[in-house]
Amino acid sequence: MSRRVSDAALSVPGETTNRIPRGSLLDIEHLDAAQITALLNLARRMNPAKPQPLLRGKRVLLLFYEASTRTRSSFEIAAKSMGAMTTLVLSSGSSIEKGESLLDTAYTLQAVGADVMVIRHPAAGAPLLMATHLNVPVVNAGDGMHEHPSQALLDTYTILRHKKTLKDLRVVIIGDIYHSRVARSAIHLLSKFGAHVTMCGPPEFLPDMAVSLAQGLHITRSTEEAVRGADVVMVLRVQKERLAGMKIRLQDYISRYQMTMTRLKLAKRDAMVMHPGPIIRGLELTWEVADCPQSAIVEEVRNGVPVRMAILARALGKAK
Amino acid sequence: MSRRVSDAALSVPGETTNRIPRGSLLDIEHLDAAQITALLNLARRMNPAKPQPLLRGKRVLLLFYEASTRTRSSFEIAAKSMGAMTTLVLSSGSSIEKGESLLDTAYTLQAVGADVMVIRHPAAGAPLLMATHLNVPVVNAGDGMHEHPSQALLDTYTILRHKKTLKDLRVVIIGDIYHSRVARSAIHLLSKFGAHVTMCGPPEFLPDMAVSLAQGLHITRSTEEAVRGADVVMVLRVQKERLAGMKIRLQDYISRYQMTMTRLKLAKRDAMVMHPGPIIRGLELTWEVADCPQSAIVEEVRNGVPVRMAILARALGKAK
Amino acid sequence: MSRRVSDAALSVPGETTNRIPRGSLLDIEHLDAAQITALLNLARRMNPAKPQPLLRGKRVLLLFYEASTRTRSSFEIAAKSMGAMTTLVLSSGSSIEKGESLLDTAYTLQAVGADVMVIRHPAAGAPLLMATHLNVPVVNAGDGMHEHPSQALLDTYTILRHKKTLKDLRVVIIGDIYHSRVARSAIHLLSKFGAHVTMCGPPEFLPDMAVSLAQGLHITRSTEEAVRGADVVMVLRVQKERLAGMKIRLQDYISRYQMTMTRLKLAKRDAMVMHPGPIIRGLELTWEVADCPQSAIVEEVRNGVPVRMAILARALGKAK
Repeated sequence: MSRRVSDAALSVPGETTNRIPRGSLLDIEHLDAAQITALLNLARRMNPAKPQPLLRGKRVLLLFYEASTRTRSSFEIAAKSMGAMTTLVLSSGSSIEKGESLLDTAYTLQAVGADVMVIRHPAAGAPLLMATHLNVPVVNAGDGMHEHPSQALLDTYTILRHKKTLKDLRVVIIGDIYHSRVARSAIHLLSKFGAHVTMCGPPEFLPDMAVSLAQGLHITRSTEEAVRGADVVMVLRVQKERLAGMKIRLQDYISRYQMTMTRLKLAKRDAMVMHPGPIIRGLELTWEVADCPQSAIVEEVRNGVPVRMAILARALGKAK
Repeated sequence: MSRRVSDAALSVPGETTNRIPRGSLLDIEHLDAAQITALLNLARRMNPAKPQPLLRGKRVLLLFYEASTRTRSSFEIAAKSMGAMTTLVLSSGSSIEKGESLLDTAYTLQAVGADVMVIRHPAAGAPLLMATHLNVPVVNAGDGMHEHPSQALLDTYTILRHKKTLKDLRVVIIGDIYHSRVARSAIHLLSKFGAHVTMCGPPEFLPDMAVSLAQGLHITRSTEEAVRGADVVMVLRVQKERLAGMKIRLQDYISRYQMTMTRLKLAKRDAMVMHPGPIIRGLELTWEVADCPQSAIVEEVRNGVPVRMAILARALGKAK
Repeated sequence: MSRRVSDAALSVPGETTNRIPRGSLLDIEHLDAAQITALLNLARRMNPAKPQPLLRGKRVLLLFYEASTRTRSSFEIAAKSMGAMTTLVLSSGSSIEKGESLLDTAYTLQAVGADVMVIRHPAAGAPLLMATHLNVPVVNAGDGMHEHPSQALLDTYTILRHKKTLKDLRVVIIGDIYHSRVARSAIHLLSKFGAHVTMCGPPEFLPDMAVSLAQGLHITRSTEEAVRGADVVMVLRVQKERLAGMKIRLQDYISRYQMTMTRLKLAKRDAMVMHPGPIIRGLELTWEVADCPQSAIVEEVRNGVPVRMAILARALGKAK
């Protein structure tokens, strides 16, 4: 599967691609640094506060097979701010449709006039499957345990508003990395730009083989060790349901991995605290950490809008 | 009920009507050929690719008491493409409201400023009930086992892009005709224009009395006989739940009625394959048939947009 | 809690406020007569039939934690009629989020660019909680058993289209006052302007202590006594589920409190019948009363749009 998309995961309008519609954004793994940089530069030229009719008359289909508040509303507002029409199609998470049904839904939504499809789906690879069969660009808004590329881009956008470069930046990611598409996309992106990424969590959330995900990754089981000297502390959400089936108990998880002010002080003085949301205060991080001056959690959400404006503009060939 | 709406099922703006608001589209049965032709001609002048502000400032209320992806998004995109505002009101299918409640909901939505109401409802006659009490036009987007007029119009629009005339056209409709509002609307429309319609299916899905639905209908229980020499092969969705209560088993249904390439070859060489969707590949038709060059299934969805633009434009008195 | 918002429940743009964002509308209780009058005057200058781009480019977030048809569609149409973009965020009523989660959701929606937040929530005080933490105005669209200020404003707007003044107007409110945020807001508003409000219902729906809600309130258990000589008869919805746990039986409630034409004739000849909706014909009022010439029930819905246009315009500093 990865071979097939290799250089077309983000295909730039004007380039010739094989099967993936130009402008699609399926993952971070198969993007190169230049493509990522171009996208971030485009995002910096976007101004959500001043709606511009760049995409007037374009139709953005938002196809969400999983619940979402921030990602869906962020894409929707990004689209509307550029004058596009949005149409939301939700599917109950319980009756997950089969691959065939997904494709026929995709054909249908393309036929009603979608100019770009933004899809969130519980199955890894669903956006790729769609993209290989459609003529319109597909944007992955999170697929199973695979990737969440727009989140990684907005995280990077946020980091680069505070740090000069990703090169040699010390980033620690703490929590349920195994199940996290956010972590996967972030790790791919940060590694491409030479950041030093340390992953931290219990073995059930962070198997040893995770180091093979990208180059230069490190694993530690000690939060203190992970955080010491870090430039960026990225905390992941912990789903209680998942702890239920594990050997580790909730209280143990909290005592060993919760981000506290004490632990945060081990990081660099200007270290940033990040979290993709929704946060659970008192579980993976304390109230104090969530609201401390170093917290960029709300800023991440804010930066999601210009980043998604850039993603949509590029998808629709409006990336000047 | 039928007498009451007789010549007002599609009342044209400018005409005097008794009780049904002008511009309503409640069924196909009570339309005459001239009204249908006018609507199709209007649809041909619509261009979904170039949004025009024909309905700027108009409010389109989409009131869906049943799940819908294609019909709802098609009406929504049709409305927005002409500059109208849409407001979607959904009602969970489980807590179906009584007739009284439906009317009060209708009064409410009229009062908030609806200029036209598009309604899908599990009860046959719900749109008519609304239309007889409201001052704004009502468009039937599917009511129980009664009619689905916009689907029949888009089907006809699609047929006429490939066939010169409906007169003497040989159309076969295969499957669960008894429960299908799509079939009912299509049969009324095709019969009015002199097509020869053959219906095919097991008795539970196609009782003998179905021939009385319109003039010149034929019934056969043999798919081979039905398809032989056909110009249009319209396949209906089979709901597994309904087979459960029948004498016929799923596997028997498939072996006797599934549209296969072998059976399709009995039709005319240029026969069209149609299906209102959503299709269930491997049940009422094979993968090969769904994707064969003769399949117009995706084209039907595409044509739904200009047809519904025409329906809305006419409803709002903008049919020039 | 009430002290903290005292003079900022409706803070007018241009005024300095302490913690509540200017333009918020949290309740009626803490508004003064001048603020209410200004809002009603603004509503009278709004024309829903002629969309104006007063709020072009503004983002209205509609955050509904409870089901709503009329209030939600009314706010949505009000916003769109002034050129604003709307984004709807729904939350299933069953998984009510905790206070913390609500706040983090609020921070998120503010960060994606909300210019105003309209919120309905099952917990009394939820809009106030949000307003004390956000920088954008918050509009209460109904919070638990607390208040529903936009409903009270549209009710007053409706009354004043038929009556010269609220002063000394005789208003009777019948039904489940205890659980009704509509009643609470209406009582505060009417009392501020010197209306004489009589409340009527069984003790479970109307405890004796309800007289302390505002000045000059009266309680009676007799519908006939309540209605006699009234200028306005406001009937509240009765939720059958609530009667289930009470000593009073449904049939007894109907015989004692249902508004009938016979009872209505005890009121003044030009008395208005009002109901916040949705009505249940045959329960709290008869079909005849719902549809009688004195019924202003549908007019209330219609007036909701200009009133909510005024609320949103003021929230966004566009109240000229």
